[in-house]
Amino acid sequence: MTGSTAAPFTADDYRARMERAARAAAEAGLAGLLVAPGPDLVWLTGYAPTAPTERLTLLVLAPGQDPVLVVPTLEAPDAAKAAGAAALTLRDWTDGKDPYAATAALLDASGIPHSLKGVGGALIGISDNAWAMHLLGLQKALPATFYASLTEALPMLRAVKDAAELKLLAAAGAAADATFEDIRNVPFAGRRESEIAADLSRLLREHGHAQVDFTIVASGPNGANPHHGVGDRVVERGDMVVLDFGGLKDGYGSDTSRTVHVGEPTDEERRVHDLVRAAQEAGVGAVRPGVACQEVDRAARAVIADAGYGEYFIHRTGHGIGVTTHEPPYMIEGEEQPLVPGMCFSVEPGVYLPGRFGVRIEDIVTVTDDGGRRLNTTSREMVIVE
Amino acid sequence: MTGSTAAPFTADDYRARMERAARAAAEAGLAGLLVAPGPDLVWLTGYAPTAPTERLTLLVLAPGQDPVLVVPTLEAPDAAKAAGAAALTLRDWTDGKDPYAATAALLDASGIPHSLKGVGGALIGISDNAWAMHLLGLQKALPATFYASLTEALPMLRAVKDAAELKLLAAAGAAADATFEDIRNVPFAGRRESEIAADLSRLLREHGHAQVDFTIVASGPNGANPHHGVGDRVVERGDMVVLDFGGLKDGYGSDTSRTVHVGEPTDEERRVHDLVRAAQEAGVGAVRPGVACQEVDRAARAVIADAGYGEYFIHRTGHGIGVTTHEPPYMIEGEEQPLVPGMCFSVEPGVYLPGRFGVRIEDIVTVTDDGGRRLNTTSREMVIVE
Repeated sequence: MTGSTAAPFTADDYRARMERAARAAAEAGLAGLLVAPGPDLVWLTGYAPTAPTERLTLLVLAPGQDPVLVVPTLEAPDAAKAAGAAALTLRDWTDGKDPYAATAALLDASGIPHSLKGVGGALIGISDNAWAMHLLGLQKALPATFYASLTEALPMLRAVKDAAELKLLAAAGAAADATFEDIRNVPFAGRRESEIAADLSRLLREHGHAQVDFTIVASGPNGANPHHGVGDRVVERGDMVVLDFGGLKDGYGSDTSRTVHVGEPTDEERRVHDLVRAAQEAGVGAVRPGVACQEVDRAARAVIADAGYGEYFIHRTGHGIGVTTHEPPYMIEGEEQPLVPGMCFSVEPGVYLPGRFGVRIEDIVTVTDDGGRRLNTTSREMVIVE
Repeated sequence: MTGSTAAPFTADDYRARMERAARAAAEAGLAGLLVAPGPDLVWLTGYAPTAPTERLTLLVLAPGQDPVLVVPTLEAPDAAKAAGAAALTLRDWTDGKDPYAATAALLDASGIPHSLKGVGGALIGISDNAWAMHLLGLQKALPATFYASLTEALPMLRAVKDAAELKLLAAAGAAADATFEDIRNVPFAGRRESEIAADLSRLLREHGHAQVDFTIVASGPNGANPHHGVGDRVVERGDMVVLDFGGLKDGYGSDTSRTVHVGEPTDEERRVHDLVRAAQEAGVGAVRPGVACQEVDRAARAVIADAGYGEYFIHRTGHGIGVTTHEPPYMIEGEEQPLVPGMCFSVEPGVYLPGRFGVRIEDIVTVTDDGGRRLNTTSREMVIVE
């Protein structure tokens, strides 16, 4: 919510994005797009309702039709203040009325080509995170339609960032880097993970983040669980500690991981850390336009597998980032989407040794004309903390 | 997320809730329930994933089958720590695998009575806020099923609170009341709405809230927009100010509104305030077991309509509260659900005079054997602030 409307975009920027989305929808054979509150709506209109609610809010984009935002009457004044409001029409509905019928009428009016109607229904794209309740309401109101999630139908809708977006992502990355430079100097030994996480949260905010999405502090054996958040464990000398943190600054995301060591590491700890570093280097090195996403995963994974640790790298190599900290494109086996200049995503291999320790190293990388450029630039050598 | 697992419930409590839900599903003719992360899952299992994600997490409840939580492998260790984990089976799935097929197999195994299959497919209930992407995946994996949102299929699943829940809701209400007693003594005139909202947020937390959901400070003409959140407007002497705030304390919600005046009100302001107070009194007075929800709305609305202000009361009279601050039952025209002892909901009529000011007065009320009992007890007289 917060911060998302601080991005310096105008109604014209949002109009251009909505036109681009409608065009992409038509090219993908979609009769329309239904966009729910969340990252797609923020990106297309600048509008983020103050709280998610059971009342339907939905942007209707259909080829050859002006964008319409269906919105509860109570929330219409807030919606009218969104930066993109001048580029769309508000259609408000009052408690007790049927918002699905109103939405159906909009799609029916001009959005559904008869050719598509003829083959068993028109295909309409809908935000991944639209509520099931609303999808069911629409399916009932428009029986001659079928639906695909935006990730399935238009996975790359927000994936290629323009120059202004890249600048905001770079600034978020720099703020996360400044946070790491500060956190490496706080005391680790003898403090709970939760206390160090609170430091991370405070530092991200001090460095300009309006929203903190995650502050993972996974020490010792906790580091072997890649999604361990934060616990009450007291960090000890001799611990490896995985730090993974990020959030939104001016509406755009940061996400970086470094693995630090409290005091001197053992040879094995150093070897595993260097292995993950080499894997991350290989992943970033594979980034260039035209290469399939899965090649980035393969490049990082091969380094770890070749060293005999393949079974301990138990997640995909990366995910996109933009107005969220987690979005397409995914760097995963089976993803054949070619990289395009302007895409931004994490490269974050890891090794997780159950009951012992884990290592993860993560940078955000953007695709340039001739390779990949990191938006995180703090040292990837093992950092010793106290 | 936060606070929701602080509620003092055991695995046995959660087992009982899951059994109750499965029974209610069978009685409603449902072949199963699919519960997504969010309030339903918290209520049924105590599990709240640290962040919503595109990876499928879904509780599968089917009559005659043990509860199964489908969960991403990465998040399985966290899920295993939930208070209700001992009452269910975890079924994890790894990146790259198809979680919908796994879920479909669970429902197919024993959940779908053949009698239902015969009539065009089994009806399955799904959380309102399950992602559309996941519903589409399930619809594809299980073509012989159709779906209803839990609000439609089992609207009263969480509506009737037990004694432990009522105690937690009363404690949350008392904390909100303590917040109001404090906020009426802070300076209003000359400060921005956003500064007073920050005070509300701080006070709610000081009084034990782990999560603040909303802190509406709507002064002067902003008060005429019932969903005005908070702005930069500087509060002036002579303003009416609508305060509406709440969140979660120990996993259960608070939500109360009072309308205060900066300095002495005019006769008209006092008259409108007294009218809303009388309407709220009438709404609360209508609460007793067996009465339809819409009667609470009608009772409050009639007072305002009779005074000639009917067109300025532009929202429903109330909504349920529990592990969320906004849920069924709704006090709205057309809702014929009878009230049952243990239900908790807001009674919050308002009058909104465009461009001028607004008044809203809101208490949480619980249905007792012989009427309604308020969980908010601060003065509903007009409070003068400075």
